[in-house]
Amino acid sequence: MSTLFLRTLREDPADAEVPSHKLLARGGYVRRAAPGVYSWLPLGKLVLENVTAVVREEMNRMGGQEVLLPALLPRELYETSGRWSEYGDLLMHLVDRKGADYLLAPTHEELFTQLVKSEYSSYKDFPVILYQIQEKFRDEARPRAGILRGREFHMKDAYSFDVDDSGLEESYRKHRDTYMRIFDRLGLRYVIVSAMSGAMGGSKSEEFLAETPVGEDTFVRSTDSDFAANVEAVQTPAPTPKRVTGLPDAQVHHTPDTPTIETLVDYLNVHEVRPGHTFTAGDTLKNVLVKIRQPGSDKWEIVGVGVPGDREVDMKRLEAAFDPAEVSLLEEEDFTAHPFLVKGYVGPAGLQNNGLRYLADPRIAPGTRWVTGADRADHHVVDLVCGRDFTPDGTVEAAEVREGDPSPDGHGTLYTARGIEIGHVFQLGRKYTDAFELDALGPDGKPKRITMGSYGIGVSRVVAAIVEQHHDDRGIVWPRSVAPADVHVVGTGKGDQVEVALRLGSELEARGLRVLVDDRPGVSPGVKFTDAELLGVPTTLIVGKGLANGMLELRDRPSGDRVEIALDDAVDQVVAAVSD
Amino acid sequence: MSTLFLRTLREDPADAEVPSHKLLARGGYVRRAAPGVYSWLPLGKLVLENVTAVVREEMNRMGGQEVLLPALLPRELYETSGRWSEYGDLLMHLVDRKGADYLLAPTHEELFTQLVKSEYSSYKDFPVILYQIQEKFRDEARPRAGILRGREFHMKDAYSFDVDDSGLEESYRKHRDTYMRIFDRLGLRYVIVSAMSGAMGGSKSEEFLAETPVGEDTFVRSTDSDFAANVEAVQTPAPTPKRVTGLPDAQVHHTPDTPTIETLVDYLNVHEVRPGHTFTAGDTLKNVLVKIRQPGSDKWEIVGVGVPGDREVDMKRLEAAFDPAEVSLLEEEDFTAHPFLVKGYVGPAGLQNNGLRYLADPRIAPGTRWVTGADRADHHVVDLVCGRDFTPDGTVEAAEVREGDPSPDGHGTLYTARGIEIGHVFQLGRKYTDAFELDALGPDGKPKRITMGSYGIGVSRVVAAIVEQHHDDRGIVWPRSVAPADVHVVGTGKGDQVEVALRLGSELEARGLRVLVDDRPGVSPGVKFTDAELLGVPTTLIVGKGLANGMLELRDRPSGDRVEIALDDAVDQVVAAVSD
Repeated sequence: MSTLFLRTLREDPADAEVPSHKLLARGGYVRRAAPGVYSWLPLGKLVLENVTAVVREEMNRMGGQEVLLPALLPRELYETSGRWSEYGDLLMHLVDRKGADYLLAPTHEELFTQLVKSEYSSYKDFPVILYQIQEKFRDEARPRAGILRGREFHMKDAYSFDVDDSGLEESYRKHRDTYMRIFDRLGLRYVIVSAMSGAMGGSKSEEFLAETPVGEDTFVRSTDSDFAANVEAVQTPAPTPKRVTGLPDAQVHHTPDTPTIETLVDYLNVHEVRPGHTFTAGDTLKNVLVKIRQPGSDKWEIVGVGVPGDREVDMKRLEAAFDPAEVSLLEEEDFTAHPFLVKGYVGPAGLQNNGLRYLADPRIAPGTRWVTGADRADHHVVDLVCGRDFTPDGTVEAAEVREGDPSPDGHGTLYTARGIEIGHVFQLGRKYTDAFELDALGPDGKPKRITMGSYGIGVSRVVAAIVEQHHDDRGIVWPRSVAPADVHVVGTGKGDQVEVALRLGSELEARGLRVLVDDRPGVSPGVKFTDAELLGVPTTLIVGKGLANGMLELRDRPSGDRVEIALDDAVDQVVAAVSD
Repeated sequence: MSTLFLRTLREDPADAEVPSHKLLARGGYVRRAAPGVYSWLPLGKLVLENVTAVVREEMNRMGGQEVLLPALLPRELYETSGRWSEYGDLLMHLVDRKGADYLLAPTHEELFTQLVKSEYSSYKDFPVILYQIQEKFRDEARPRAGILRGREFHMKDAYSFDVDDSGLEESYRKHRDTYMRIFDRLGLRYVIVSAMSGAMGGSKSEEFLAETPVGEDTFVRSTDSDFAANVEAVQTPAPTPKRVTGLPDAQVHHTPDTPTIETLVDYLNVHEVRPGHTFTAGDTLKNVLVKIRQPGSDKWEIVGVGVPGDREVDMKRLEAAFDPAEVSLLEEEDFTAHPFLVKGYVGPAGLQNNGLRYLADPRIAPGTRWVTGADRADHHVVDLVCGRDFTPDGTVEAAEVREGDPSPDGHGTLYTARGIEIGHVFQLGRKYTDAFELDALGPDGKPKRITMGSYGIGVSRVVAAIVEQHHDDRGIVWPRSVAPADVHVVGTGKGDQVEVALRLGSELEARGLRVLVDDRPGVSPGVKFTDAELLGVPTTLIVGKGLANGMLELRDRPSGDRVEIALDDAVDQVVAAVSD
């Protein structure tokens, strides 16, 4: 440490809000070069390398083949896939001296697809899994939290290519298992949540979220089971269909001055519309009108979305439900163009009788009865029974998810948690292979479109996630698998302590340990101990004033335990402690 | 190889001109993604990693500390150093979503200087050597030769920071020694040539050039010694000064119709100006007028440059001589503005009498006599003696270097060779520390400006340079230190050869060897042997038809030697061959 390029800081950086940012900066692991752009100093580089090594080892074990693709890619590739425009401002682009458009790749689906197309042609060539560990660039609107969300960051991205869906399932399962092994080895607590696709397009998708209160991703999990999912991916359990016989007929009521659900419910109760029953918002059926547009189309379709009146529509869930179509609320001119849409009083009948689709929340199940719009100003219909008076054209997950909702797996109820997305596994399907026409000749001599998966781990973000989960108020507490050293030997005192510390360091290195020795002259014991705790190497060996009696102190960073050990025995003791 | 992402090519890529480009593409090591932008496929990635590992090991052994800085850097840093404009079109720049200017770093002097300034403050902190291995970006006008000159490439760049010049000398020497060890381990034949600085600014500088006929850099070396230098850096040996007494007086001659040196020489001989002497171009003194402008200045200075008339002025040498000043030839308006400059008849006197500097080639030494312009149209002066009739204001290296010129070290003569720049060591001095005001507090409490060196190795280019030096007409012949495998086991035949090859492969791996097994079904022996030679693993073990008699064949790729070995003994034999 007397020559190590390291200066710890006593103060948190002014812009640091989350523990990982504060501690990695104070510990001299990283330094900010520009907004969202960081330099890795020597100890940080070691930790990053340790994480990378675990990822590489497990990817190779799975049969992944490592390659290295460039960051600088031509626009044409991303025009072919449509991502040049889909990615929007997130994409960093530049123009070369000849005026050609380039981008810095946010991920590499396009070039991998093109590469496989250029090398492979027969079904016998597949499956193949390729991966790289490389810098990625995204022009985040609000880079934040240090290396948690940067604009230049390190990522492991992998791509699988299979001839059929069952092959893709298998490649997906392999990655999912591999990711579990990787994150277990890295000492991360995580949940695997069902996720919806974003701009990537595709089908099945799960995210690995490292649980931490500073996480940007909200997810729900069950009180009584392992169930966890992104809010967008929560499937509402549908009630068992009930018989529709024996229920009263639907009646249309004149309900003046009921512009809101609250006023409507009041009206129904005051007028004792169903004697003996107290109406609540949950008895009403709220019909929201949206228009959707499929990618590549210029035609909007108006769709009615029904949700129980006691729940808001969650636009993110609604968008995810219609993905990849674009979703927008109706504008005034849409109502003008369709006079049968009576604003505030739209009911299922008015929509379906006019050829529009009506999709409903799964809670709108056969046998349930509702108060809803009567397609006539100032009128509502009561006792409208699903499966008798109307039948939705399908279900849609649009209603908000609330704490206490039943877990979709039938066990317990949901509650909200936060996490950092550290990994993502994704069945892309044929979005990119269609765009690039990647086929393999099948055994029958006919071309078969390849199906694809993509799988990412945010390698630099993982470093921050580990710190979020492994720190205390004195500093970082690295898991052994990623620590910048196995043991931190602190020599402190006026005698030959530093000399002995250096000698022990050499002996420990000879035993195969990675050692950091604090041999700084003129630095007080207090500062050295504080720095050791801040840096967070799991085991510290202190060569201090006890040396006169042949005694050293071994400290365990996670537990804070301290034991006296004999100098003669120190190397063996440290080796044993580190191997625990 | 039955599952390896590798397809060899029988044909050279259409755009490939040099052997390394052809062979790395045909061997499936790299693929072009865009002009000057390449992907590294699995075997290529392995070779790149092997080169990187050697570089890292030697840099660490020297005491270098590895860090990792971002590629994306803000404009301000490069404005501070002046390189934002100096680098011109070579710099790749982009604008982020907020409109801020960024660049992709071609090298990182600025950020390293800023980083050291932010961490270090006392003379006791120094020296420090930091390095990284990372992607660099340069918008080359003519990316060529595959990975030899790319626009995105891998580089090891190191920076030393010292408190004084002797420290810098020591850091420089360490790097120079380390580079020699690195290139020796990589199996490269190279020369170290004196180089001049380019846009980097600074003082002492040497380049490591891998000798190859396809090299972009021309250099000269001596027939009889180790001397080697860039043409720009060749120092002309000055002749011993001679006595000026006893020489005839200078005489001005009317020399009509002598617009060229050839016509002048003819005129002098025809008119027997010096009886008994046959004039040659080497007797004449050619005075070239240039104007120079110092960086940051808007004032041009006119300077006369004298060279022997039998040599052209080499503009690259002239520019290097005046670096960092800008150099330009005089324009018509300059002559108009300075009527004493008689175009075609300018002599030293006309310049110096009018306050202009006159610099001369070192061959224009005291006691030499010349025919040159008489500062009067159609007139030349003969027997103008240096040191008697004129004295240059200094020497300048502007004359072309020719094969057969005496070597500057006094041993032998020069000849021209070509090489690829694989490394560069550079005493930057205080260009960047001045720009960023990087000081250390000295023992006397006074700030001392830090002095700096920068040191680069083109890691991806090195891969190409190795292939240029290690190939034959059948393919690549990797040095063991960088080969993608230690041994290539080829199983071929209708029996259990492939099975045995795979088993031997496992046994060799268990002995610590890196193994490539050709287990491809339905591929002919000829294709397998051809591919093995193309791929260039140094040792090949063939499990072929001899297997029936318990015999295998061991082939040495560099020599082409083949020996029969017994199956029972094969693993030991291969281990021995690989350890040679």
